[in-house]
This record gives sequence, C-alpha cells and structure tokens, in this order.
Amino acid sequence: MDHKIKIVNDPVHGFIEMPTGKGSYIVNHRWFQRLRNIKQLGMAHYVYPGAMHTRFQHSLGAYFLTQQAIEVLKSKDIDITDSESESVLLAILLHDNGHGPYSHTLEGSIIQGIKHEQLTYAFMTHLNKELEGGLDKAIDIIKNLYSKRFLHQLISSQLDMDRLDYLKRDSFFTGVSEGVIGTERIIKMLTVSNDSLAVEEKGIYSIEKFLIARRLMYWQVYLHKTVLAAELMLLSILRRAHFLFHQNKLTLPKLLHTFWANKLQYENLIMEPQWLELFAQIDDAEVSIWIKEWTQSNDKILSFLSKRFIERKLFKVEIQRQPHDEEKITQYRKKAQNFLNISDDEATYLVFSDSAENHAYSIHDNKINILYKNGKLLDIADASDILNIDVLSKNVVKYFLCFIPECKE
Amino acid sequence: MDHKIKIVNDPVHGFIEMPTGKGSYIVNHRWFQRLRNIKQLGMAHYVYPGAMHTRFQHSLGAYFLTQQAIEVLKSKDIDITDSESESVLLAILLHDNGHGPYSHTLEGSIIQGIKHEQLTYAFMTHLNKELEGGLDKAIDIIKNLYSKRFLHQLISSQLDMDRLDYLKRDSFFTGVSEGVIGTERIIKMLTVSNDSLAVEEKGIYSIEKFLIARRLMYWQVYLHKTVLAAELMLLSILRRAHFLFHQNKLTLPKLLHTFWANKLQYENLIMEPQWLELFAQIDDAEVSIWIKEWTQSNDKILSFLSKRFIERKLFKVEIQRQPHDEEKITQYRKKAQNFLNISDDEATYLVFSDSAENHAYSIHDNKINILYKNGKLLDIADASDILNIDVLSKNVVKYFLCFIPECKE
Amino acid sequence: MDHKIKIVNDPVHGFIEMPTGKGSYIVNHRWFQRLRNIKQLGMAHYVYPGAMHTRFQHSLGAYFLTQQAIEVLKSKDIDITDSESESVLLAILLHDNGHGPYSHTLEGSIIQGIKHEQLTYAFMTHLNKELEGGLDKAIDIIKNLYSKRFLHQLISSQLDMDRLDYLKRDSFFTGVSEGVIGTERIIKMLTVSNDSLAVEEKGIYSIEKFLIARRLMYWQVYLHKTVLAAELMLLSILRRAHFLFHQNKLTLPKLLHTFWANKLQYENLIMEPQWLELFAQIDDAEVSIWIKEWTQSNDKILSFLSKRFIERKLFKVEIQRQPHDEEKITQYRKKAQNFLNISDDEATYLVFSDSAENHAYSIHDNKINILYKNGKLLDIADASDILNIDVLSKNVVKYFLCFIPECKE
Amino acid sequence: MDHKIKIVNDPVHGFIEMPTGKGSYIVNHRWFQRLRNIKQLGMAHYVYPGAMHTRFQHSLGAYFLTQQAIEVLKSKDIDITDSESESVLLAILLHDNGHGPYSHTLEGSIIQGIKHEQLTYAFMTHLNKELEGGLDKAIDIIKNLYSKRFLHQLISSQLDMDRLDYLKRDSFFTGVSEGVIGTERIIKMLTVSNDSLAVEEKGIYSIEKFLIARRLMYWQVYLHKTVLAAELMLLSILRRAHFLFHQNKLTLPKLLHTFWANKLQYENLIMEPQWLELFAQIDDAEVSIWIKEWTQSNDKILSFLSKRFIERKLFKVEIQRQPHDEEKITQYRKKAQNFLNISDDEATYLVFSDSAENHAYSIHDNKINILYKNGKLLDIADASDILNIDVLSKNVVKYFLCFIPECKE
Repeated sequence: MDHKIKIVNDPVHGFIEMPTGKGSYIVNHRWFQRLRNIKQLGMAHYVYPGAMHTRFQHSLGAYFLTQQAIEVLKSKDIDITDSESESVLLAILLHDNGHGPYSHTLEGSIIQGIKHEQLTYAFMTHLNKELEGGLDKAIDIIKNLYSKRFLHQLISSQLDMDRLDYLKRDSFFTGVSEGVIGTERIIKMLTVSNDSLAVEEKGIYSIEKFLIARRLMYWQVYLHKTVLAAELMLLSILRRAHFLFHQNKLTLPKLLHTFWANKLQYENLIMEPQWLELFAQIDDAEVSIWIKEWTQSNDKILSFLSKRFIERKLFKVEIQRQPHDEEKITQYRKKAQNFLNISDDEATYLVFSDSAENHAYSIHDNKINILYKNGKLLDIADASDILNIDVLSKNVVKYFLCFIPECKE
Repeated sequence: MDHKIKIVNDPVHGFIEMPTGKGSYIVNHRWFQRLRNIKQLGMAHYVYPGAMHTRFQHSLGAYFLTQQAIEVLKSKDIDITDSESESVLLAILLHDNGHGPYSHTLEGSIIQGIKHEQLTYAFMTHLNKELEGGLDKAIDIIKNLYSKRFLHQLISSQLDMDRLDYLKRDSFFTGVSEGVIGTERIIKMLTVSNDSLAVEEKGIYSIEKFLIARRLMYWQVYLHKTVLAAELMLLSILRRAHFLFHQNKLTLPKLLHTFWANKLQYENLIMEPQWLELFAQIDDAEVSIWIKEWTQSNDKILSFLSKRFIERKLFKVEIQRQPHDEEKITQYRKKAQNFLNISDDEATYLVFSDSAENHAYSIHDNKINILYKNGKLLDIADASDILNIDVLSKNVVKYFLCFIPECKE
Repeated sequence: MDHKIKIVNDPVHGFIEMPTGKGSYIVNHRWFQRLRNIKQLGMAHYVYPGAMHTRFQHSLGAYFLTQQAIEVLKSKDIDITDSESESVLLAILLHDNGHGPYSHTLEGSIIQGIKHEQLTYAFMTHLNKELEGGLDKAIDIIKNLYSKRFLHQLISSQLDMDRLDYLKRDSFFTGVSEGVIGTERIIKMLTVSNDSLAVEEKGIYSIEKFLIARRLMYWQVYLHKTVLAAELMLLSILRRAHFLFHQNKLTLPKLLHTFWANKLQYENLIMEPQWLELFAQIDDAEVSIWIKEWTQSNDKILSFLSKRFIERKLFKVEIQRQPHDEEKITQYRKKAQNFLNISDDEATYLVFSDSAENHAYSIHDNKINILYKNGKLLDIADASDILNIDVLSKNVVKYFLCFIPECKE
Repeated sequence: MDHKIKIVNDPVHGFIEMPTGKGSYIVNHRWFQRLRNIKQLGMAHYVYPGAMHTRFQHSLGAYFLTQQAIEVLKSKDIDITDSESESVLLAILLHDNGHGPYSHTLEGSIIQGIKHEQLTYAFMTHLNKELEGGLDKAIDIIKNLYSKRFLHQLISSQLDMDRLDYLKRDSFFTGVSEGVIGTERIIKMLTVSNDSLAVEEKGIYSIEKFLIARRLMYWQVYLHKTVLAAELMLLSILRRAHFLFHQNKLTLPKLLHTFWANKLQYENLIMEPQWLELFAQIDDAEVSIWIKEWTQSNDKILSFLSKRFIERKLFKVEIQRQPHDEEKITQYRKKAQNFLNISDDEATYLVFSDSAENHAYSIHDNKINILYKNGKLLDIADASDILNIDVLSKNVVKYFLCFIPECKE
C-alpha cells in the first residue's frame, strides 16, 4: 500500500525520485544534509538575487541526470551492471560533498591548501567505512581507477552530468535564460564508443550550444565583476583575519581557530574523521556570523571590510585583458591609506589586483567526442566548423583591479 | 551615455528595474539588505529543496507588480499622482521589512508578542526620519490612513500585489507548478470603482483560479505536514531555550539575551531605534548558529532537539480535523519519557498538539470585487457560482500531533 | 547500431517516443495522417492566433500520457498485461480519429446525424480488418466492453488522458497560461481501486485545480463568444448551402455532394469502407476551399456569409443567462432584411439565437474517485469541501444572439 | 469606460496590444488576414508536428518586438519621432505580406520568378493607395530609402526584429528548446551609433548565442533532411504539373491557371492590383486541394507523387558536403524507371539532386555592431574571440540526393 519511493519536487527537472538503499543512507547523513546550507554560487546572489540554490539541490539534480543517462546508454545496449549503475549514482551524489562554505569562494582558505576534491575523497572514505565497503566501487569510479572509463566520464569530464546540471540550474535560478541548455536532448544523444562517452553525430549543434552557453555563464555570472567583487571582499576579510590571528591580535571563532591553529594535510583528513566532523559544521551561516562579529573588531581593516560586506557596499572592480598598471594601483592605495588612515601594507586589503581565467573547452582534458554514423570518433574541436577551438581552448585571462570607491573620488 | 537605471534579473518576473531616488536609498539600506538572509518560506526547503528564496526577492517582486498595476490603472484613467505612485511603491518595498528569521515561523518569539507588521511600522518610522519625512505618505497608505483607499488595497487586501508575488514566487521555487497564477492577466483586469480595487467582469475565472491556487499552496506547501514538523521543532527548541533561560540554566547568545532579558513593547521599538538595529542582526544564519551551539547544551532536551533539527530527523506529524485524543497524547509522552529518561513536563517538548487554520477567502476583510460592465460591483463570493464561498470563508482547522518517531515504535 | 525508436519533439510534453508495431502501422496510415489537417480547436485561432494545433499532435500527446499512466499504475502493482497495455495505447491513439474538419464545429453536419465517436468506431473496425483482429481488444476497451473497466477510464472518463492532454495543450497553444494543469502530478497520483481509476488522497487539491482550470478553459476559450461567432458563422454557411442544395439551387463540391446526396447510417460506415475513404479526404483545407468558392455564389446569403467569414468580419454575439427576447430578434432580423434586401426567412441565417452549455463535473458519468489511506473511496464531489459540486454539476446554459453588426447601426 | 486597445494572447511573447489606426486597418485587411493560412515553416510540421504556426502570428510578434525596441531606443535618447515610430511598425507588420503558400517552399513557383519581397512591395503599394499615402514613410523605410538607416535595420538586418521573432517562435512551436534566444535581453542592449543599430558591449555573449542558435535552427529545423524531403517533393509535384500544363496535358485549377498562363513581371503587380487579389487567394489550403486532385491525375508521375506526399511517404534524402556522384544518380534513376515504368526524363521527378546553403553570419550585409563603452564600434566578427567568423560567414553548402525509397531496395 505504501509506495516507498520518495519523490521530491525540483523546479529545474520536475519530479526526482529519491535514492534508496545506500543512496538513502547518504542523503540522510548529516554530512550530506549540510549541503543545504552551502550556496551553489557563493556570493552570486548579490547580483542575481534568485541564486540562493544550494549544493544539496545540485547534487540531487546531477544524480537525476545520471539516472537518465544510464537509462539511455542501457537502451543503446551499453553494458552497465546494476552494481555499476548503483556506484556511479552514489559517486555523483557525493561528488560535491567536499565543498565548504560559499563553494569555490573560500576553497582552500579554511583548511588551507586543501581542494574540495580531496575533502570529497575524505568524506567518501569515512562514509565507506560506515557502509562497510559499500562505496568501494563508487570511489574507484570517481578516482578514475575503474575499468570502464566512461562511468567516470559521466561524473567528471567536459560533458559530465555535473556540468549539465549546474549550467541548467544556475541559469534557472539566476534568471539568465540564455544559459539554459537542452539537457534532455544532450543526454538522449549520449553513447559510448571505445570505452569513451561520446555524442551521436546529430548532437553536434547541441554541443556547440552547450559550449557557448557555458562560456556565457562564465562571463555573465560566474566571473561577473560584481560577483567577483563580493567574493574577493570575503577573501580579503579572511586574509586579514588570518594575518591578525598569526599576529596574536585576533581571537578566532572556535571552529575557525581549530583549523587555523592546526596545519592539516590530506592524510589527516583521511585518517582522522573528527576533522571532517568539524569541517562539516562550517557552512555559509557560520561564516556569516564570523563576519558579523568582526564588524565589531578593534582592527580597523577587519571591521571596515566586514561592515561593508554585510551592507553590500562592495569593492569597485575594473577589468582588462592586461595586468593593471602598477602606478595606478599605488595611487589607489595612497587614496585608501589616507581615507582610513592606515599603512601602506594595510591598504593591500582594500586595493589589490587579481585575475580570473577561463577556457570554454580544454584540449588536454577528456575530449568531447562526436561519434559519426560510420563509426568515426572526432573531437568536437575538429567536428565543429564554427567554433574556433584554438580560441575556445585558449585561457582567457581577465585582470581585475579591486578597490574601495573612495579611491576614485 | 550611462543609463542610470539598474536592472536586476528575476527568474520569476524577468527584468526588474531597480528603484531610484528614495527607493534606491531604501534598497541599499542595511535594514533592507538583511532581507537577503531571511528565507521567504521558513523551513519549507526541508520538503521543497528549491525554496531557498528570500524576503529580499519577494519585496522586489511585489514592487515590480505594483509598478505594473499602477500603469494599468493609469491607462484606465484612474487618477494617481506621481507622489502617490512613489509612495505606494515605497510602501510595498517595505511591507515585509519587519520579518525576522525564518519569516512567520519565529514571529513573536524573539521579540515576544510583537507581530511583524509592528516591526515594519517601526522600521518605516525610523527610515522616515532618515528621509526627513519622505515616507509620510507611504506610511499613511500602508496604515490605511490615506484618503484613496485603493492604494492601500494594492499593498494589503485579498488581492494585493504581495499575494500575487508570493504565490507565483513560491510556486516557482518549490516547483509546485500548480500554484502558478496568471499575475499578468489579473493585473491587466484591475480597475478601481468606488475608491475600491476591483476586477473587470471577464477576470472572474482568473480570480477563481487564484483562490484555488492559494488554497492549494496552503495545504501543499505552507501547511505541509513535514514543513510544519520542522517549524514546530524549531519553535519547540526556542521554547525550551526560553524556559531554561528563565530558570537561569542557560546562557543565551548575546543578541537573543538582549531581547529575552528585556520585555519590549511596540512603543520601545518606535522610540528607540537601537532595538531595531539589534533585531536587524538576527537572521536565519544567526538562529542556525544558536541551534548549532545548543546541540552541545547540557540540557538533554535542548541538545536532543537541536541535533535532530540540524540533521533533519524531524517530528512525525499526524493530522486530523478534530483535536487529538488526550489519551493518545499521554501515551506518546510516556514513550518519549522512557526513551529520553525525562520528566512528564519535559516530554511536552517532544510530544505536543497544535493546530493550523486557513480560510481561502475572508468575507470580513476587504472583499475581492468584480466590476460588471453595467457598473454593478459584486463580491467574488456572490459573483462566482462555482466557489462555495461559505466553505472558502470558513476556517479550516487542522489539528497536528507532533511527536518523535520513537513514540510509535 | 540503429536505434529504431523514433522520437518526436512535442513542445508540450517534450520528447515523445513514437509507437512501434501496430501503433506504427496506425500512425503511418493515411487515415491517421489526415489528422494533421484538422485543427484541434476549430475556429479558436480567430481569437487565439496560436491555436493552430491539430488532432494529430493531440492524439500523440494523449498516447504519451497514457504511457506514463500505465507505468505509474504498474509501479503500484496494478495488474496490466503487455497485451492490455498495447491495446489501451492503440485505443487512445485512435480515440479522435473520427473527427472531421474543424473538429466539433462541423460535427454531424457533413455526414448528417453521425457523431465523431461513431466515425471513430467505424475507422477502428476497418483498421482492425487490415490488422487482422489486432485491434480487437482496443475496440473492446474503447467501447467499455472490456473486463478491466479502469482501462476504459484511462481513455474516457472525467479524468482521462484525453482531457489531461487537451487541457494542457490548448492552454499552451492559446497562451492562456491559467489553463495549465499539472498532468505530471495528477498522473503520479493515479491508482486503481475496485476496478476504478482513482486518485490518491493527497491529489485532491490537484483535482480541484483541474476542474477549475477546465471550467476556465470552457468559458475563456472553448465557448469564447468570438470563437462561437466564427463557428456559428461557419455552420450558418453550411446550413445555407444545404438548403440551397436541396432546393437544387447549388452545385456542391464533389465530396460534399457525395455525402449530402446519400443519407448515410452508422451501418453504412461499418459495412462500406469507401465512405470512410471519402470522408477522410475532407479536412479543414477542403472546407475552406468550399467557402472560398461560395464567395462567388449567386446566392446572396451564401456569398455574403462566405466573404465575411474569410475576411474575419464575424457575427456580433450577445450572451445572457436567459433566452433572448423574441422581439429583439425580430427587430434585428428586420434590419438584416433591409440591409441585404432579403426575405424574413433568409434573415435567419444572419440573425439567430443559440445556446451553449457546460458543466465542469458530472455526477452521472464516471466519477472522479479519491482513494483515502484507510481504503475509503469518495467522489471528488464529496471529498472536496471547497467546490460547490451542486453548481459544478449543474448545466450552465448561456444563450447567444448572433447577428451581423449592421443590425445595431 | 471601454478601453479600446485590443489585446491578443501570444503564447510566445504573452499579451500583445493590437495596432490601432492605420495598423488596425491593415490587420483587418483581407490581405493580412490571409497570412493566417500560411504556415511559417512550410512543411516542417511533417517532422515537428507543433510547427503549425503562421505568418500571421509571426507578423504580430515581430511588430511587438519592434515596439519594445523603439521604447528601449527612445529611453536611450535616440531620436525617433511619433511618425517614424508608426511607420516602422507599419513596415514590420507588412514585411512578410508577400509570402505565398508554404512560405519559402513555393517562392517563385506560382508567380514564376517573383520573390516574396517584390510581392510585399506590391501589396504595400496598393495598400498605400487605400490609405492615401499613409504608408509613404513605411515604404521608404522598408526599401532603405529613409534617412535614418537604423530604422530599416530594425526590420531588415542581421539582427532585425524579424529574426528575433522567428527564431524564438520557431523554437517554441517546434519544441527545439535549444533555439530559444533571449529576445528581451538583446533588445534591452540595443542602441544606435553612427546611424547604425548596435549592441552594447555587455551584450556580446548574447549575440554569440543568437548566432549559434540561428545556425542550430538552420540545420536542425529549416534544413532538416526530412523537412527538405517534403518540400522538394512539393516542388517536384509543381514542376511536373507545370511541365504537363505546357504540354497541354493538364487542366489546371483556376487560380493556378491564371498565373501560369500569364507571364507576369513585377511591373504588372505594381500596376494591376487584380493580380494581388488573385494571388491573395492562394494559401496552403488551396495548394493542398490541388495536390488532392492530382492524386487522381492520369499522369503517372503526378498522381504518384501527389499520393505519396499526402500520405507522408516522402523522398529519402542523402546529404553530403560534395556534389553527389552522377553514376549513383543514374543508377537510382534506373531503379525508379523500372519501378514505375517511366522514361528516363520522367525519372528526374523522382530522383534528383539539389543543394542548400547557409551562412550564419554575413560579412557583406549590414554587420552586427558592438558598441564599446569608449565609443568604439566593432563588427561582431571582430569583437568575438570565440566565433570563427571566417567559418560563420562561409557558405556551408550541403548537397541532397532525393529519391524514392524503392531506389535502394
């Protein structure tokens, strides 16, 4: 009578059937539930107020798309066993579990030097123990150690289910409708050739559009200059806090203290689950509370930046293709110094240059392969006559100059 | 060259032109910016993961719809001066400013006994000072003291722009597509008759659908039993904390201490802006941190509930139309007592009954008027032959019994 | 290598997998292909220009939804054999095959007195011969002669896949977004109890919304007065042609002549396939050509009406709840007589009264059953406390008075 | 009381306010109303069943977008007088009026050698007389004789409102969601520089996406091989009929006879309105009736092709980048000859080669200009680093080989 499959409403994909078995164990785990408190797009909501969506939704969405993809591949007689299917799904479910607060924004700054992928592996390692080896194959797949390589590519490649979900989801929630991609069509075109994920010939235009949409989302959303301004401000705050802490001039919030007082290596995370337990408690809310506290700090810089951040009085940003003129930077710093009556060194928290780069397509990573009817396999870079792959694959570097508005007054 | 109007992407309504002048002052005010950190739907995201949208977005959306409505009314030769138009827009922008963390969920529990409308008035009073009387008319309108009553009805009535926005927005973000209403059509049908907002005759079916959609959203989202379970758990936690505080058994977080140690009246808020300044600092994140701390509390109840809340191990809820059987409640409490080894009194935090009520339409409030071509004005209750207004306007009361799952094992 | 399943893009439901086997035979049959030339909504596109969609699309859409429904029912352990599943799908595919030009508008006027359902049965009878009995079970199901009654209800009941598709489709193409219904959710809630299709308890609000949306579509689209004006004009033209033909004053187009010169009975259609072959040639285009020719007719009435129809100079329509005043009609007819210099009798083609009726829900037909968790089955009329089923099930009759604009000048 | 502005529901753009004044005269003209019977995408609905939309809807949609564009330009202080604004709107309304049945498919084959643009001019010339010169300026604009060139570019250029509407509309109705473009955003970015329409710098990614979407629609819809198969079959039928007519072996339907018996020049159309009156009577329905009749023709080829066309038994099509091998063609023709027992010459109606070409962007036409903040104006070809404009602007030629399936058995 009671139909055990739980269904969740996803505004992006419609109804999603929730995982059962090990998947259900994972979804209900506190380490997975915490993703509800980590915004997918860091500070992008300062520019796109709708962008409040979380890693939790994204993980479920990517899981859903992977389910679709597996069904399509099976219908094309690609051999995928039930255990492989379960493992890919577990892997995609967990692929972002290592993300910390504000996703990429603060990556490497709370546990210094550690990437979110390493944290993901660590989480999986410990969950695997709880599940008594139930994640063995999932871990192999995510680490690309599993024999059928195309399973890894579903999770991590230039046309993985992760990207398909996040591009569609980010478009949806930001309202940048031009980023919308036809996930349904792309997935219908998926196939496997030579143990490699490939796209059927007639899907070529969809792939071109996918690459263009991805590029558009990069410059319009992910690297939008006001989004960057917010994220760099957040980073600047943490940098200042870190400096003060090491100068013994700042008492840190407990959780942050733990991580900054201990220089952790990847091995620690793997061997000592208590670190993950603590890390799992640091979400967007936690960080926002630190900053609220720091608005009251005695340190002029820290309180100044924290206040402005909370009230969304952000840095100004100037962007160009070349590094910014040192003289201009110096001049802006002078202004900042005078304005806040601070030292030259201190002004580097208020005026600094940084860069962001992006290539829409990489010729080094797993390629996007087009499978022709005659069996030929071609890299999209060669299959597409319109996309200038030289350019697509070239790093586009943009140089930002961040500064407080007072520098230009 | 520089076109000063700022445009914001709203996934619900498309492009929204940001307010200028006083409106811009308000939007950039820290008191308005804080709405970014207050989820529109409290804990609904525990059931509908997409529902992370905020009062900030909603306020801008309602502002946008009000703009549309004013344009429509003007095109029908309804007299609205520029100053009136500006004031309605300022009023709608601020209509939800008094909301605290998790919107309705915690209403009245942080500043005990104070409704969010009172807080809204308080915020407006102080902002009015900052704007040197610039909100005088907006305040009159929101308080329904202004001569043209229909302006107030745009902000607060059974067919106000507030409802139009939140129904559409909540449908959009929860993915409950059936709650979607045709805001564009309804607004095009608006008119004014006898100083009352009215809907042109041919809009009658749209209004019927609006009422049905509203009812659907109530039972499917706002009063969904798991949503309630989460919200009642949150309330139960705060109730326990409040009890412990007054027993001197709990040291409160600073901000909460301030409010619970001082019994504030509405007058205090009006006269002493510092309260608002403090209240404005309490957002969803702040509360989530309290609960995280309380997971470590010595109090068995408080830590138990806090842990479960964070890990989304919620109350079970049974719903019925009649009050729940006292005997059953007693029996469940016994189970809870045994399970946690607590007293009878303490078990009331884990097992309790509550009720929620809703009427889709009120015959006492501002009616929804249908304006016929012959000039006749009819309440939708009389104009619609399909909607059973007796029922629509009857309070539907549902009784919940909340308890921890262990009570039924 | 070649994956034989053909996929068709449906703007309403997304990708639809085309039927295979017998279903493919049917879809490729000239009798099915002709549905491409029969607009789903007759003349509604005169008011809603987007409403050019056809019975072809609708038949595929209903087929798709039936597929979904069968899958859902099976997942709930309802016993449906492969052969039953195939037969319901064939039945829904053909359920509208008997529709003639402009769908309902001209029903019964080309083959006088024959309903489209009878034509559907006739087409199925002959297709069944071609398929050597392959439609036996499908015919039993559509005629409600099959033991499992719920299979018939999927095709024809107050909550059948036919209605779910046409409401959604008609909303989509007219752009009346308020008619949109949540087909996905409703289908997910379907179940069978007591050999009757039923809806799970928590689907009750969706059903309410479905009934309201249906009613809205009736008055806003299907019975919109300008749509009626166009359809009644078309009928008036055919009535005039029929009169003239029987007066030997009009040479008919060949196909029409065949049908009006032979008084066919249902039996003829069943026994003599040639009639269907001829009928199948009469589509919207064919009729439009007749009318174009008739613009040149010697008969003043016929040419007048035909010209106006083509140029979309339609009747005016006045609607009321009571029959129209005879005196007024007489007076309008006088005007029309004078205007065209015609007889009193002839004026009845230009000025006439008619009525349309609709009930949103019938208490006599197959009810919509709600299945409660305790196993109780309740008619939605009793389950819903908001819908005034007395009213919903009451025929709403509206009386139209059609006349040429000159009558009021 | 009565608000004279009529509103029409467009499923693509929402509510469209119908033109008033001269615009209303035109919309209600029989020459404009006939566009209701001309499908925007010819035979594309054989592949995309939803694609039944008409030139009528498209003309209103382009009108709507032009209205938006004018508003945006005015808000940026571009000088456009009321009379200019009215004239551009009249011009866009009429820009497709010269289209005949099945739009591009039969262009030049009914009135041999005449392009639809010439017919548009002819229609406008005669409507201008009816309006006593009211279209003078609109004609100047559409012919690019008007001083402000950017007004012409709104109607006809590589980023005109025509394209914006048809890409979005065709995507919508075919269900090829990937063709969707962000018309709203593009229009918001429009500006004028140097009397040329231009796009603001930050619109560059939207333009890239527009070009890619356009290309995608070309290969996925407009030049889809089954669509081509249908259109080439239709053309083949007409070619055969034309041949037979000139051999005195076929009595043509009256309207077609008129045009094929008279060799008309553009001048005739301009001087003698009766031709337009007759041409206006030839819509999709008319042609479909010809073909229905021809299924009964004595000519083996004509009846064979006509039957297959109606029953959607289309040509097979093979596509390649080089011309097809003559030998293969000869061999296929042999098969066709044998199959139908016809001559070598006659087989050319059943087996033939043709080509289609497309460039996504032309470097010769009006360029798409990007206006940088520093005032610099750059062709998108130079502004975009990702689009390979050499390729985009290169004609992509694809060679089709059409043949009946029997040729390959």
